[in-house]
Amino acid sequence: MRDVFIVGVGLTEVGKRVDIALRDLAAEAMVKAMEDAGNEKPEAIVVGNMLSSLVEQENLAALIADHAGLRGVSGFKAEGACGSGGAALLAGYSLISSGLFNKVLVVGIEKLHERPTPDTARGLAYAADADYELIYGISFAGLNALVMRYYMNKHGVTREEMAHWAVMMHENAYHNPYAQLRKKITLETVMNSPVIADPVRLFDSCPLSDGAAAIMLVSEKYRKLNDTPVRVAGIGNALDSPDLSSRFELDRFIAAKLSTERALKMANASINDIDVAEIHDAYSIVAAISVEEIGFAARGKAPKLWAEGRFRLGDRPVLNPSGGLKARGHPVGATGVYQVAEVAMQLRGDFPGLKVGGEVGLAQNIGGVGSNVTTIILRR
Amino acid sequence: MRDVFIVGVGLTEVGKRVDIALRDLAAEAMVKAMEDAGNEKPEAIVVGNMLSSLVEQENLAALIADHAGLRGVSGFKAEGACGSGGAALLAGYSLISSGLFNKVLVVGIEKLHERPTPDTARGLAYAADADYELIYGISFAGLNALVMRYYMNKHGVTREEMAHWAVMMHENAYHNPYAQLRKKITLETVMNSPVIADPVRLFDSCPLSDGAAAIMLVSEKYRKLNDTPVRVAGIGNALDSPDLSSRFELDRFIAAKLSTERALKMANASINDIDVAEIHDAYSIVAAISVEEIGFAARGKAPKLWAEGRFRLGDRPVLNPSGGLKARGHPVGATGVYQVAEVAMQLRGDFPGLKVGGEVGLAQNIGGVGSNVTTIILRR
Repeated sequence: MRDVFIVGVGLTEVGKRVDIALRDLAAEAMVKAMEDAGNEKPEAIVVGNMLSSLVEQENLAALIADHAGLRGVSGFKAEGACGSGGAALLAGYSLISSGLFNKVLVVGIEKLHERPTPDTARGLAYAADADYELIYGISFAGLNALVMRYYMNKHGVTREEMAHWAVMMHENAYHNPYAQLRKKITLETVMNSPVIADPVRLFDSCPLSDGAAAIMLVSEKYRKLNDTPVRVAGIGNALDSPDLSSRFELDRFIAAKLSTERALKMANASINDIDVAEIHDAYSIVAAISVEEIGFAARGKAPKLWAEGRFRLGDRPVLNPSGGLKARGHPVGATGVYQVAEVAMQLRGDFPGLKVGGEVGLAQNIGGVGSNVTTIILRR
Repeated sequence: MRDVFIVGVGLTEVGKRVDIALRDLAAEAMVKAMEDAGNEKPEAIVVGNMLSSLVEQENLAALIADHAGLRGVSGFKAEGACGSGGAALLAGYSLISSGLFNKVLVVGIEKLHERPTPDTARGLAYAADADYELIYGISFAGLNALVMRYYMNKHGVTREEMAHWAVMMHENAYHNPYAQLRKKITLETVMNSPVIADPVRLFDSCPLSDGAAAIMLVSEKYRKLNDTPVRVAGIGNALDSPDLSSRFELDRFIAAKLSTERALKMANASINDIDVAEIHDAYSIVAAISVEEIGFAARGKAPKLWAEGRFRLGDRPVLNPSGGLKARGHPVGATGVYQVAEVAMQLRGDFPGLKVGGEVGLAQNIGGVGSNVTTIILRR
């Protein structure tokens, strides 16, 4: 298997980006990533996106490649709900590792503010099971609320403990120029915020976000395009049933565990090697289960650890120095690409927010309620 | 680069499949392909699909893997408009060739009859440019009509010559048990059929189709799972601008030419080696340009050749013994998988319709109006 390196990253500011068209936002990230890779052009692109259908646009690979000046390259879109960015990176990795290409640009793009919020919320629920869940009128927040209630009851976790996650994420995002919510909050902010789907409150939940991120992946031959190439040491993906009623345990994401095991095995690494990680905290309950399935905490213990002050700068591992989905924002199909770009920048030492440094980093991107999970291990 | 082999194919009957749910139709094809591969299960799946958003369902890889008894495998959806099946095969090929996996099941699935026809027709136009084309109210048939009018005028091709394609496709499909339109027609049928978008008539156009097809791809180690493994000798993909107004030549599909060149180079083959091909005849004009870009005819000459009786059984190459998109049907995201499965069965000798045989086959799957094209070369 040929080694794959990250030699360029490009981020755009996450937020309500009604100032810019989808194709322009994507091209901004792509051009930045190409500049970071010595102005090298890719031979192929893979686009991570979930919901461009809401603006009546598919065929994004062709659309975006052309707009970024790459007409004639190869490419397609990869989709795995909110895990589309991770899926695109898996596809991009394999296109290079296979020997088919030497330079592949992976770009995640999502614009959720192009449609009225109720339409977008409905679109996000396409990640769930239309025939067995959505038909009963449940929302995506409602599905996560079911898991959160069950988890808190089973493990004796308090509302306050859960709430500390959001406070930490806003503290981290305060320093990140690309983050959507760059303001510090208190525990009271979370505890007094409106209930969205009991027990999920507004500040347990990530915002609606627009954003684009791009990563230039290359083979060994092109690693010198950047002074500090970062190696993709491991990549693992796993699928679970979207339909929660058919899960064996409601407080677990088996796909997150499987994908972590696969990534660590491929990287020949242990969880104790990880210095910094970006995890998928679409809701605080998703953060808790993700942290536990990766192995950073025992089952049911993640919220107690973060309420005690763990996972912050100075601890090891540091979680979500970007501010996470909660405060950097969650431009759905782009999120997995943001995460990996942010971890790569931490290892390179040039992340423009909180600087963690380190040798080994991890990113976990989750689609659905734990139904399509990609975990990636990077080494400096 | 590791060799990749086809050791299992599974087709479902194309048509108006309101008798069966999307996940069941996909699972039917997947189970058939696994049975054909000695009941072996894959480690990963790639789903080719364009328009499941119309039924408010994304995250298809997780949904379909679970339903087919494959919970826990890796996977994602690949999309490239009507070229989604080819894109899924490119992704599946690279997942194996990279060494990440040894067994990958590629499944194409589309159900276009789940929504009223106007909604579906609007959805198909997501392959075009929403901001620069659809906003003016043009349909996908309308875009193809622009190209057809230009092509016929420029090359002096008559309406009758174009019409022979549909007659040939219906003759071929008559023998294919999986085909949607198993009835022979005459030149008059085409010439007297209603105008959809002048000069495109109803019988220049493929039908709306539901269908699923699956292919088990494996590495060298598993080629013995089938008595007659077929090697994927070459695979090439290229993107062009979806927006026709920015093309250099309206009667050409440069992406089709590039993808053919890439596939032939990888297969170390020439166009003269091809015994049988399945090409993407969504409209008769698409068939003409595809045939010419592949190199089976000089520019502007394809309709003259097929009107003279070329490309039929006994000639070389034989085109679309399945009946093509025109008469086998065009279940959008599944079409590329049907094409490759059909060519593989021709080389194996067990295609249940017209039997061509041969050593080398080609399939070309086109997304948009020539904006995302994958060409695949198979060798027995």
